[in-house]
Amino acid sequence: MSYEYDAAFYEAFEEEAEELEKLLPKGHKYFFTWKSIQESDHIEPIAGIISTRTQSKFPISWIDKINAVITRSTGYDHVSAYFRECGKSVDAAYLPEYAARAVAEQAMILWTSLLRILPLQLESMSTFHRDGLTGREIRGRNLSVLATGRIGRQIVDIAHGLGMNVTGFDISPDESLAAKYPGFKYASLEEALCNADVLVCALPLTDKTNRMLDRKMLGLVKKGAVFVNIARGEISPTEDLLELLEAGILSGIGLDVYDCEKDLASVLRGGASLESIPEERRKTVAATLKLMRDTRAILTPHNAFNTEESVHRKSLETSKNLDAYFRTGRFISPILS
Amino acid sequence: MSYEYDAAFYEAFEEEAEELEKLLPKGHKYFFTWKSIQESDHIEPIAGIISTRTQSKFPISWIDKINAVITRSTGYDHVSAYFRECGKSVDAAYLPEYAARAVAEQAMILWTSLLRILPLQLESMSTFHRDGLTGREIRGRNLSVLATGRIGRQIVDIAHGLGMNVTGFDISPDESLAAKYPGFKYASLEEALCNADVLVCALPLTDKTNRMLDRKMLGLVKKGAVFVNIARGEISPTEDLLELLEAGILSGIGLDVYDCEKDLASVLRGGASLESIPEERRKTVAATLKLMRDTRAILTPHNAFNTEESVHRKSLETSKNLDAYFRTGRFISPILS
Repeated sequence: MSYEYDAAFYEAFEEEAEELEKLLPKGHKYFFTWKSIQESDHIEPIAGIISTRTQSKFPISWIDKINAVITRSTGYDHVSAYFRECGKSVDAAYLPEYAARAVAEQAMILWTSLLRILPLQLESMSTFHRDGLTGREIRGRNLSVLATGRIGRQIVDIAHGLGMNVTGFDISPDESLAAKYPGFKYASLEEALCNADVLVCALPLTDKTNRMLDRKMLGLVKKGAVFVNIARGEISPTEDLLELLEAGILSGIGLDVYDCEKDLASVLRGGASLESIPEERRKTVAATLKLMRDTRAILTPHNAFNTEESVHRKSLETSKNLDAYFRTGRFISPILS
Repeated sequence: MSYEYDAAFYEAFEEEAEELEKLLPKGHKYFFTWKSIQESDHIEPIAGIISTRTQSKFPISWIDKINAVITRSTGYDHVSAYFRECGKSVDAAYLPEYAARAVAEQAMILWTSLLRILPLQLESMSTFHRDGLTGREIRGRNLSVLATGRIGRQIVDIAHGLGMNVTGFDISPDESLAAKYPGFKYASLEEALCNADVLVCALPLTDKTNRMLDRKMLGLVKKGAVFVNIARGEISPTEDLLELLEAGILSGIGLDVYDCEKDLASVLRGGASLESIPEERRKTVAATLKLMRDTRAILTPHNAFNTEESVHRKSLETSKNLDAYFRTGRFISPILS
């Protein structure tokens, strides 16, 4: 097939598009938009290589019309799911490590701000009152991180640096972490939850972790814990989080990722009405909208990866993959399906 | 003289008053209010021992009517100034160390949130857009802390723990800090400013530091630096901060303390009009009100000390001082005038 462009980059916000334009292999035609495929209303592919982040849904009909897919994200379950749905695949790449530190640092900002009830502090500036603004000290508190992969181990590093007591849960514990960080230890999921003043979810999204942190499991946390999710929203249903917050079991919630994130984005970004969201997902989106108005929650728009350093690394990794593909027909960091 | 109460506690917010009531020596009569002396409209002292934080102004006429003063703060320049103004003094106490870690942790929340432009991230949640939300990674950045006293050395500890390059300025350098924190070094004030991505003011307020960080001195910072002040507002005039922000020399400002803080409090808390503020201080208050509406600034209501741990330590130190005073006529941590 012939296309108007060699590669189309969806979900590329301003700074990323600029950086990509600088770094991508020359002599090719590229298309950039901040929109997802759906928001772009592209019925047919406009390029042989389609690049997205995690919010676009690849149309089934495109599988026979495109040559390759690049997801500019560390997670690629959405690409695997697409191939499973199609019963076939095309060449595909992902970006394994570009943003681990940036994501961990944003998680830290969320958990420390929640311990010190920053949203209430900011609100109280307008009256210069201090009633109800007593927070909790960070040093000496217990932090549990779920999964000690690329992001999780950066979280261990940061929490250890802040003088916290750090516990990790992972299906494949890495004992070298305990050697590197005195005081760090692994525990079972249940133990990790029970002891946590701060619980950080850095789990990959898999069939096992999907909805793993539901009201029953998360209900095991120490009363008054704060919960931070910078991994994938599907791991912890929003209605359950809201319920645990309202019951006082969680005292604060920090999210950068969302259950039903595509639907949430279409409401917030595209102005779609809540009623237009299919019923089975409407409650989830409504719960997120409710959390947005709660001073016990700090919500950011899937932006934890977004630093100058990681935007640069991300565009560089994307362009190295594309360059290799143009020259050899193979990606550097392929998704193996 | 005889008084209605043995001791009157001004500026005691809810959680603090509760903790004080638990811990203060029994068998005495205490008065508590969240108001300053001025806001309370107390013309005559209602107790022989007057306790405030930093926002009350001690009336000159009270010096002959009261026995003692306790400032529930680490800074006590306002008490010294009162005694100088009166040409005489009474017994006085302050609280040397109750909140150093809490203050340093709040400073950290401010500088990390500014590097990651958290206010804009929060605002962009409502549109789920990411344009303009690219922040800066924390690890590897240069932080300079002005003064390495009780709070400053906690800031060194935290910044070092986050993997930052830390420089200190102090008129009495403590070389043991360099031994404890590999990479930490002392520099002149000018050097400390020039190299800083993050500049944190932890200076005590003295004749020398009053207005020390004005537009000329602060203008020496690395372009785009963020500035955080958790010490005393008088050290850095607000109009100058606003000017440096608007000129792009500073990219972010985090404040927990304010120049003309008493006037600011009377406007924000008491609903006084800006016009009621004496002309020489009106511009300063107006500049702070303008900063409050700027997403490049994060302002908190002099609340950095406020954690469960420090409220407890503060009330405990206050009550130990009072107990010693009742029994021996001497404070444990006296202000030597």
